Amino acid sequence: MKKRGLIQVYTGKGKGKTTAALGLALRAAGAGLKVYIGQFLKGASYNYSELKTLEKIKQIKLEQFGQGCFIKGAAKSEDKELARGGLKKVKKLMVQGKYDLMILDEINIALKLGLLSLDEVIQLINNKPGRLELVLTGRSAPAKILRIADLVTEMREIKHYYKKSVSARKGIEF
Amino acid sequence: MKKRGLIQVYTGKGKGKTTAALGLALRAAGAGLKVYIGQFLKGASYNYSELKTLEKIKQIKLEQFGQGCFIKGAAKSEDKELARGGLKKVKKLMVQGKYDLMILDEINIALKLGLLSLDEVIQLINNKPGRLELVLTGRSAPAKILRIADLVTEMREIKHYYKKSVSARKGIEF
Repeated sequence: MKKRGLIQVYTGKGKGKTTAALGLALRAAGAGLKVYIGQFLKGASYNYSELKTLEKIKQIKLEQFGQGCFIKGAAKSEDKELARGGLKKVKKLMVQGKYDLMILDEINIALKLGLLSLDEVIQLINNKPGRLELVLTGRSAPAKILRIADLVTEMREIKHYYKKSVSARKGIEF
Repeated sequence: MKKRGLIQVYTGKGKGKTTAALGLALRAAGAGLKVYIGQFLKGASYNYSELKTLEKIKQIKLEQFGQGCFIKGAAKSEDKELARGGLKKVKKLMVQGKYDLMILDEINIALKLGLLSLDEVIQLINNKPGRLELVLTGRSAPAKILRIADLVTEMREIKHYYKKSVSARKGIEF
């Protein structure tokens, strides 16, 4: 029997959604699986420390579909275009079946901001190849996505030091 | 002003506690920080896929203080000895101040199983060097630890495919 790949969602306001997905990528690569990480909203202009380490790992491919700064207020057409281009790319890669694990980082936020159509993302998920493990991250995951997911973890913020006005630190938060 | 390292706890029954910590290690290493991961309960007899990838990253040092199989029922003296030896090692490394980020993986479980003394762990945390970022993982984190932590994230299991009786898959769960 072929192993079935599942749909995992990491959501909630707490810390650790993207980092959990990155850890999953690390684990999968260690087992010889091929991993694709598509980061919505994030972009090259933002210097994410983890990318430097990920670049050294052959089995992991990472791409970004954002401007690298968080969108405040209304989404711009540029943000929409980047996100939609990303989804198109992901769809294509999915059909090609090259990867064992695909992580769509912050896709929930892209949905919340209206950069992507929920119906289109649902369709993508429903059409995923059987073997593929699909991971979606970002707070505010839509209920429709939670319903079709196999695993949903909510990261709940119980205590957060931002509230103590500690600034984001390189290598820890980004 | 020197940046203060904080105390982070990842707890709860949901997935992603250890993987979030591993992602954090990846990120920190990417920023040139030195990372130490001490895994309680886990041991070399268990073939964790992530270790193979981690071994390739120079700035990350990983050690294990367990037998590699989860303890069922009462803890054996051997488990206790391994865990206590691990804590001693961590204490020594902390004093040496070689690392920027130290992850004590599954230490909450080691506490819950009575392998370690809570007072001793609290003392360790309270005496940590100011710059050190300390991360503790594992479900059932004791209230005393939550109180002294700067950041607490609870991973809540909303939906889990174990319940659909899918077996653990190499590269995904381990």
